[in-house]
Amino acid sequence: MIRLEDSIWDSVPLLKAEMMAFEQMLRDEFAGGSFIQAAASELIFRGGKRLRPAMTIAAAHLNQYSQDKAFPVAMAIEAIHTATLVHDDVIDHAETRRGETTIHALHGNHIAIYTGDFLLARGLKQIAKSGLAINDMAKIAGAVEVICTGEVSQYLGRNKLPGYRAYLRRIMSKTGILFAASASFGGYCGDLSEEQMKTLWHFGMRFGAAFQIRDDIIDMDENQKTAGKPTGNDLLEGIITLPVLFAAADKNYRHLLNQFFSSKRDPEKIKSLIRLARELGAMDQTKDILNRQTQRCNQILEQLPDNEGKTMLRKLVQLLEI
Amino acid sequence: MIRLEDSIWDSVPLLKAEMMAFEQMLRDEFAGGSFIQAAASELIFRGGKRLRPAMTIAAAHLNQYSQDKAFPVAMAIEAIHTATLVHDDVIDHAETRRGETTIHALHGNHIAIYTGDFLLARGLKQIAKSGLAINDMAKIAGAVEVICTGEVSQYLGRNKLPGYRAYLRRIMSKTGILFAASASFGGYCGDLSEEQMKTLWHFGMRFGAAFQIRDDIIDMDENQKTAGKPTGNDLLEGIITLPVLFAAADKNYRHLLNQFFSSKRDPEKIKSLIRLARELGAMDQTKDILNRQTQRCNQILEQLPDNEGKTMLRKLVQLLEI
Repeated sequence: MIRLEDSIWDSVPLLKAEMMAFEQMLRDEFAGGSFIQAAASELIFRGGKRLRPAMTIAAAHLNQYSQDKAFPVAMAIEAIHTATLVHDDVIDHAETRRGETTIHALHGNHIAIYTGDFLLARGLKQIAKSGLAINDMAKIAGAVEVICTGEVSQYLGRNKLPGYRAYLRRIMSKTGILFAASASFGGYCGDLSEEQMKTLWHFGMRFGAAFQIRDDIIDMDENQKTAGKPTGNDLLEGIITLPVLFAAADKNYRHLLNQFFSSKRDPEKIKSLIRLARELGAMDQTKDILNRQTQRCNQILEQLPDNEGKTMLRKLVQLLEI
Repeated sequence: MIRLEDSIWDSVPLLKAEMMAFEQMLRDEFAGGSFIQAAASELIFRGGKRLRPAMTIAAAHLNQYSQDKAFPVAMAIEAIHTATLVHDDVIDHAETRRGETTIHALHGNHIAIYTGDFLLARGLKQIAKSGLAINDMAKIAGAVEVICTGEVSQYLGRNKLPGYRAYLRRIMSKTGILFAASASFGGYCGDLSEEQMKTLWHFGMRFGAAFQIRDDIIDMDENQKTAGKPTGNDLLEGIITLPVLFAAADKNYRHLLNQFFSSKRDPEKIKSLIRLARELGAMDQTKDILNRQTQRCNQILEQLPDNEGKTMLRKLVQLLEI
């Protein structure tokens, strides 16, 4: 049932071994139990790349690594992340995610919403049990607040062009903050200094932003598409991605975009909006921004000890390159 | 905007004063801010009796009371409770709660689900910041897991008769555990002993069960109905209440019930199922159980110090009497 695309870790064998062990631990943790536990487990094991746990595990390797400390925190963050995904799916009425039938399509909204709540609570409970300071506990719960705020702000801002800074704020809330928590709590698990944990927080935030920008590119690039949502899905939902934001500097594009948003959404028009954005150079512009963000991630890493932990974190950054 | 039915506290002036001050503190805490904060605030101020905060405040009065310790915990529990209500409403597609348009009817599922998540996170953050031991932090997150498990178990068990013990387990998960947390964390705020906190936990659990049984009676009693859901709403949703469980000891009733569940739900049939349950003595039987539960609550209170805290807790028990 494991769908972990573990070949992505092949070039860093130590991280690969850790990720395999982590997967086994997840499996033990979510084995058996009640219906809701089974539903939660089903969701967790639908896969994904486990980038957030990998970041926690990698950051913990920067100093005094132990699985006993890092795994529960990594698990907690994956549970929280999965909770947000299942609630997203309920909202979007998504029928599939990662190529599989979503839980709400399978079991209905009732099970899906409560399974999300269950996973959220489970994640926060796990964090509480993992010995983090009460302050960090408040930080992770606060991160969930920020994610919700970001999601709602995106929803309220749909079909409207945000400024570049507003766009950045939104992706940092929506995606950045959980990576920031993953990295800095990993630092905690590895007994790093307060200062280093702060550095890791910034690294994670920047990484999350880059991750989202990469997602924006993929949403508009047929060649990059794997399983999941159709090309241009964000446009269809009125979410302004970075390529669209750049293309909309062009007056004519802005006009077409507003026309698209104010009429019935025609898939053919999405294709032409994507083509036009490419012709206007917006995809290249976005890729430049992505490159700049990943370079900045690597620069931040220079402040941290040179060891296998850093090799792992560099590998994670490398995964964002297109 | 305050809908607090504060006349219920008239007979215990000190508790009334506390509840008014608590309401003001809630108001300050949830003032202004982002859209999601405003939505959360809207939900919080739709009222309800604030029984859970009252229980925390009352329990804290058993020894060393201070608002600074008790209010944040009481607020956290009210936030968590409100989160579960809003998710319930999304699931039930409820258009109104407590006589007002529900948030998902007003703003859509998107805002409603994320506002629920936001409130859940806010509550847990607040608990983390209020100095409770990390163990208690895990306990409250665990309580949320239990609530979700109870809700899902009720949903999966709809249209089916549970045993009496399974019924009790379900209402303790669904309703008991948050009252148990309210009472025992109140004890923590009031610097009570571990032993006393345990006693308060049992008290809260028993109180929550009684509260739910009372709700079951109200669901089937037109004279008891105030605002909110129509009489027999639980039956309509396939939820077996205690009067129905007792009535179903009768073979003929069981037959009619199964017939009702397996056909299109006719409101006229609900009326006759309610009437028949009454004729079979099931309402009286349920009231007996409720009385026994509230007596047991009062017995548990005898183990705790005799002071104004206990007067407040007795008042809470008294509110459950029908």
